[in-house]
Amino acid sequence: MLAIISVVVSNAQLDTSKQTPESSELWEPVPRVVSAPPSAPPSDAIVLFDGKDFSKWKSAKPGGSIQWTIADGAMTVKGGSGDIETVEQFDDYQLHIEFRTPAEVKGSSQGRGNSGIFMQGKYELQVLDSYNNRTYSNGQAGSIYKQTMPLVNASRKPGEWQVYDVVYTSPKFNKDGFPTHPAYITVLHNGVVIQNHTPIYGTTPYVGQPKFEVHGKGPIRLQDHSNPTSFRNIWIRPI
Amino acid sequence: MLAIISVVVSNAQLDTSKQTPESSELWEPVPRVVSAPPSAPPSDAIVLFDGKDFSKWKSAKPGGSIQWTIADGAMTVKGGSGDIETVEQFDDYQLHIEFRTPAEVKGSSQGRGNSGIFMQGKYELQVLDSYNNRTYSNGQAGSIYKQTMPLVNASRKPGEWQVYDVVYTSPKFNKDGFPTHPAYITVLHNGVVIQNHTPIYGTTPYVGQPKFEVHGKGPIRLQDHSNPTSFRNIWIRPI
Amino acid sequence: MLAIISVVVSNAQLDTSKQTPESSELWEPVPRVVSAPPSAPPSDAIVLFDGKDFSKWKSAKPGGSIQWTIADGAMTVKGGSGDIETVEQFDDYQLHIEFRTPAEVKGSSQGRGNSGIFMQGKYELQVLDSYNNRTYSNGQAGSIYKQTMPLVNASRKPGEWQVYDVVYTSPKFNKDGFPTHPAYITVLHNGVVIQNHTPIYGTTPYVGQPKFEVHGKGPIRLQDHSNPTSFRNIWIRPI
Amino acid sequence: MLAIISVVVSNAQLDTSKQTPESSELWEPVPRVVSAPPSAPPSDAIVLFDGKDFSKWKSAKPGGSIQWTIADGAMTVKGGSGDIETVEQFDDYQLHIEFRTPAEVKGSSQGRGNSGIFMQGKYELQVLDSYNNRTYSNGQAGSIYKQTMPLVNASRKPGEWQVYDVVYTSPKFNKDGFPTHPAYITVLHNGVVIQNHTPIYGTTPYVGQPKFEVHGKGPIRLQDHSNPTSFRNIWIRPI
Repeated sequence: MLAIISVVVSNAQLDTSKQTPESSELWEPVPRVVSAPPSAPPSDAIVLFDGKDFSKWKSAKPGGSIQWTIADGAMTVKGGSGDIETVEQFDDYQLHIEFRTPAEVKGSSQGRGNSGIFMQGKYELQVLDSYNNRTYSNGQAGSIYKQTMPLVNASRKPGEWQVYDVVYTSPKFNKDGFPTHPAYITVLHNGVVIQNHTPIYGTTPYVGQPKFEVHGKGPIRLQDHSNPTSFRNIWIRPI
Repeated sequence: MLAIISVVVSNAQLDTSKQTPESSELWEPVPRVVSAPPSAPPSDAIVLFDGKDFSKWKSAKPGGSIQWTIADGAMTVKGGSGDIETVEQFDDYQLHIEFRTPAEVKGSSQGRGNSGIFMQGKYELQVLDSYNNRTYSNGQAGSIYKQTMPLVNASRKPGEWQVYDVVYTSPKFNKDGFPTHPAYITVLHNGVVIQNHTPIYGTTPYVGQPKFEVHGKGPIRLQDHSNPTSFRNIWIRPI
Repeated sequence: MLAIISVVVSNAQLDTSKQTPESSELWEPVPRVVSAPPSAPPSDAIVLFDGKDFSKWKSAKPGGSIQWTIADGAMTVKGGSGDIETVEQFDDYQLHIEFRTPAEVKGSSQGRGNSGIFMQGKYELQVLDSYNNRTYSNGQAGSIYKQTMPLVNASRKPGEWQVYDVVYTSPKFNKDGFPTHPAYITVLHNGVVIQNHTPIYGTTPYVGQPKFEVHGKGPIRLQDHSNPTSFRNIWIRPI
Repeated sequence: MLAIISVVVSNAQLDTSKQTPESSELWEPVPRVVSAPPSAPPSDAIVLFDGKDFSKWKSAKPGGSIQWTIADGAMTVKGGSGDIETVEQFDDYQLHIEFRTPAEVKGSSQGRGNSGIFMQGKYELQVLDSYNNRTYSNGQAGSIYKQTMPLVNASRKPGEWQVYDVVYTSPKFNKDGFPTHPAYITVLHNGVVIQNHTPIYGTTPYVGQPKFEVHGKGPIRLQDHSNPTSFRNIWIRPI
């Protein structure tokens, strides 16, 4: 009967007069307050290096000591002395780190201003003097080493300070040691996005394939690749 | 036979002496060069507002004209005159935009320093004075309006300039008008990550559910919510 | 000098003769073997219901007992007796579950063959008789309830057995109780993909917004929505 | 004054009495109906091979002709005759394909029942007899070749029919030829999930790194790797 059909049809429509703005409000939880001044780390950041000392760092070699140098608020790689890493370990975080490749250009390709920042001690965000310095694209500054090249080359000149702003999500592993999701990384290089939620396929070796290695939290590791690259103003916010 | 088994087993292992570092080098394509000075937009940015004029903008009302004001390098909402939007349209991009809520606090909750930045004219990143101003969490500054609250509240005081750095990926729709993937947004608020590859579920209405609407490129739209909120230094980089 | 330039240029290229196939081989780890016969659960599956008893289930009401019925290898909701849930709890998994809405059609819209399968006890994959039965799209069979409608309506007729094959990834929460990534769900309904890595925004309430609730592993919960919907052949594989 | 404060505080809470269930209903769009019978392709599927002819296929060699054979409802690789591919091209889709490696085992490692299914003609989902046949893990059946090994080895015995159910999302490229997001693939092998929204890093070469190659839609390509592997019951649903 028409009457019944009409009831069914009108039933199968949204009566928007019954919609309220309150229904889509969400009052809990309340995001906690972070103070974010224009030229200082956010209030909830762990300052890993403020230019003064290595108190938050240790040698990456078991039993080793740090021989990198500090001057003018910056730390500088001492070639041959080995990598350093944070004492504290992390999983998901925002990382701010500034770096400077040597003003005096020596070497070429991978031999010029080479260093690296390892997420969780395993996944290298490449540091290199990539200003007019051709190398393999997945090995230039801002690449996930031997995996994913940066979207653009936002490198500044040798001797100038540069910035990486990183948002990093740790991989998750199942009981078989396989990733249920890979690590993801977003990087702004000197304010320019160069990695946008890029999946990290595994470790970043010089030779061979990325590997799965089950791990929990890990340190931020800085590489000694023999070149006197400098770092300053390093802070991290677990997210 | 043992001999054969032994051959098979030794066969089923990687002879690492046959691995070379060259195999994991990727030389093409070459990321293009972008100049990224410390205090100016990147060289490949489209400057949408440099403090001087509305040449890149138009009224969001068909046939309307912009009545917002410009002073001291900033544009300010003229309440009741309507939203404005960019002439050019975009899909995937990095957006930098600075905003300032009124120094003189009037109103509360959603009535205080309210404006908004719409991605592709459809998805609102909320602008609000959220400094000591409780409202629903998914409606405070940095929220995807009525969807996802920010990870933290990094708001500065009323009258201070604040920054959103946005990386935005457009949704993709299939032939049925359904998203094959949602839009994704990453936001740094005053340098602090508050949205990390957050999926956007659909449009951001005041009342009702997020909706799918098939669309191509769209403008950046700025909201007139009656409060005299200001904007400056707006640039965008299609990525 | 040309000679030098030529050296530099040739240096900046990949010598493909140094590439080896072995470099991109990965021999470890070795995926474990799972036997997957055509018409039985995979060998590593936990059989949650094989048609015989409720030994893997309990009432979702504390202290309650299960009053649903078992006949012909299927369990059927006893209206008003309450939801049931697995004793074991899970986070990431593949779930296979078959369901049947009543052959005799009664009611309409949400009142017809209504039940639900809750991931981790919190996120409802809707079960409904959606064969020629209009309701709100984000409430029909295969929807993430009140969030995301299915890509298509692959429902079979009332009284016929249907299948959901689900791949589910648990959300991860930070120390503030905010998700560092949402839950993701992929669903094949009767072999047809209807959810493809769909983000789940939060809980799936009848009224109000999806909420964040920090949780670890959770049960599979089946809903008593008063309609005598049946289930059979339920198995799960933690992944 | 206390009275005012109390007003502000009570204001800053959700009055749940104003929430309605209608507000979270979404009635449009309406998912289209797909018939999904238990043992036939879904009603909206394009049947690429029903056991009778190669009308939907062509040789992957320009100007070449197909020399693979058809018998008993299956097509079989004729070694040395070359790959074949679909005439129609696709981007995002669900693909169902059944395969059978030779009942008589010859060879080992990559030499045994080797073939492959290329998404968009570029990204290989490996086909291999991986039943008690050790090879490199990222080259066994169900791997994204030389990239990502399967979560488990769900291979059936030589001579038995096996199934891949694939959900594939095409990569998207920006104006520089870089991916704004990678391709993603989910695979069920004999009903067992072995790839779960796995990112595909680029092409899948035998030697060297995955490469970016800008492309639009592409064919399903089946590999002639000299072994007489068979295929049957192939259908695809653009999604």
